[in-house]
Amino acid sequence: MKSINNSHTRPIALTLGDPSGVGPEITAQAWAELRDKNLPFFLIGDPELARQHAILQRLPEPVCIDEPRDATRVMTDALPVLPLPLPAPVKAGKPDQRNAKAVITSIELAVKTVSSGQASALVTNPIAKAVLYKAGFKHPGHTEFLGALARQNSDWPEPHGPVMMLGASGLRVALVTVHIPLSQVASTISRENIMKVAQVLDHALQQDFGIAKPRIVLCGLNPHAGEEGAMGDEEVRIINPAAKNLRRLGVNITNAQASDALFREEARNDYDAVLALYHDQGLIPVKTLDFHGGINTTLGLPFIRVSPDHGTGFSIAGQGKARADSLLAAIKAAHSMSACRKSYGRS
Amino acid sequence: MKSINNSHTRPIALTLGDPSGVGPEITAQAWAELRDKNLPFFLIGDPELARQHAILQRLPEPVCIDEPRDATRVMTDALPVLPLPLPAPVKAGKPDQRNAKAVITSIELAVKTVSSGQASALVTNPIAKAVLYKAGFKHPGHTEFLGALARQNSDWPEPHGPVMMLGASGLRVALVTVHIPLSQVASTISRENIMKVAQVLDHALQQDFGIAKPRIVLCGLNPHAGEEGAMGDEEVRIINPAAKNLRRLGVNITNAQASDALFREEARNDYDAVLALYHDQGLIPVKTLDFHGGINTTLGLPFIRVSPDHGTGFSIAGQGKARADSLLAAIKAAHSMSACRKSYGRS
Repeated sequence: MKSINNSHTRPIALTLGDPSGVGPEITAQAWAELRDKNLPFFLIGDPELARQHAILQRLPEPVCIDEPRDATRVMTDALPVLPLPLPAPVKAGKPDQRNAKAVITSIELAVKTVSSGQASALVTNPIAKAVLYKAGFKHPGHTEFLGALARQNSDWPEPHGPVMMLGASGLRVALVTVHIPLSQVASTISRENIMKVAQVLDHALQQDFGIAKPRIVLCGLNPHAGEEGAMGDEEVRIINPAAKNLRRLGVNITNAQASDALFREEARNDYDAVLALYHDQGLIPVKTLDFHGGINTTLGLPFIRVSPDHGTGFSIAGQGKARADSLLAAIKAAHSMSACRKSYGRS
Repeated sequence: MKSINNSHTRPIALTLGDPSGVGPEITAQAWAELRDKNLPFFLIGDPELARQHAILQRLPEPVCIDEPRDATRVMTDALPVLPLPLPAPVKAGKPDQRNAKAVITSIELAVKTVSSGQASALVTNPIAKAVLYKAGFKHPGHTEFLGALARQNSDWPEPHGPVMMLGASGLRVALVTVHIPLSQVASTISRENIMKVAQVLDHALQQDFGIAKPRIVLCGLNPHAGEEGAMGDEEVRIINPAAKNLRRLGVNITNAQASDALFREEARNDYDAVLALYHDQGLIPVKTLDFHGGINTTLGLPFIRVSPDHGTGFSIAGQGKARADSLLAAIKAAHSMSACRKSYGRS
């Protein structure tokens, strides 16, 4: 029996990702898992490729839709596909540059559907940046591209991102710096960027996660958070002053904490999110605790965006080995965030 | 009934640590847990302080011994104590500089007993470096002090340390750099120190852990291990060449791996130890997985040394809150390592 609210739930736009990666097969798996859960989504991708994967997984054939709103009605019977045909045939594990333009178009169309309100949130299948670069893609990654599209499509109030936040097993970790060499981390962090990212995080926890008064824990940079300057002075010079300013502005954030003590089970009950200063500081605990179910959320965009926390998986694509756990978690999180944002500020 | 091998098991020397910290109470707890497990140890510490904690925990009064070998006989009935009276009264949570000399003497005596073969291994209770510095202690920490004592007491073959290795939940992580600012990590790692630490680790895994052909995984420094130079070139310039040289020397070590993917449950089955490049890269996963039962092993000394992976705990000392999990794990690990070392090279 369908849920009585089914027709009111706006669907999520799911991008194609690299069609030679695991995206098509985990998309089919995700549909099979979610078809009767009132968590509708539609794929912006190639109908024939989607059909092949449905057949492989003994699922009903996908149904092409004309508009995103049709997805909610179609969802229980078949995977809804907003058609974006690919020019070149798809070989699993072998990315083809001729399909790169469609990969990019899928993201652009998805942003249009969320910006116009037709979709409630955006979930992105993994892309291969190297393939897109050859096709003229100019952005460091998915997240930055979405940031640029967001700026084109809407007014965008401060504080804005994009800010990368990883989530797994009830743990949320946002990052001040992301894809830079470790040798540049100490010179890249500043009072300004710590404050900006913390404010985006604080706002998102309220708006999209329904946390009225978020508690944020701030990581130190050095071993034992520097032991008051004995092993690095960034905590004293930069990090703690930023935290102090943030508290003045009403953000409930700690001073720098020894990052190795923050992620144990008991400590995780004492905060709503961790603000980490660099990639591995945040990603090691997330992936250690939940490698398959981790998700990547982009905060500080005018729309909700979540993605699975894994790559294209070319080495296992098309072999029935890929696990949809992370994509499933991403779609569920996107729906939950959308519901929070809808009711935010109304109570 | 006592084990038939009981009298043949050499005891472990346990140091006093800071007497105002949690050491005395976790020592009493550890004795109660291990008294009938054929894992003998003796405390080098103050008999009266040990007596007070035994009474608090409703345990039999400790027994003073004249020689380490008496510990094995005494162990089932009472905590064996090699007496080292303290000059000043002990207040829980309030370290007293007047007792600093005894803290240091306890470590020196412990090294003598293991160097002479009277004790099979050394387990150290936590010390407060700041208190010892005021009493003229000249070493950066426990580990370095033990390294200096080892050099005085015995011939010490290459490859030698000290190398810090953390362990918890079946995970072993050794560190190339330890207590230095994060900003200095990239400039401190070198082919030479990676090779030296990896060789100490490889040897210790064989000698003290009974692993005939150790499999070591090497962490990258940068996000995604640098993606072939796209985000930092240390993997290409320093880390992978060191790994290649090590493999030529017979060490089974990988090239640099993305460190966020290494610590998940499935990955942990594929190696015997991880070589991490800096403090938090190694300690975050260890403490995330097992905060209370983690241990710290010093490799590359002429004797076995293990310590609990926590500090003096002044803020909770004397309140019955301290957990002996880590000290228990340390004593068990020290006995296991001692048994391995005894049979190493004999088969």
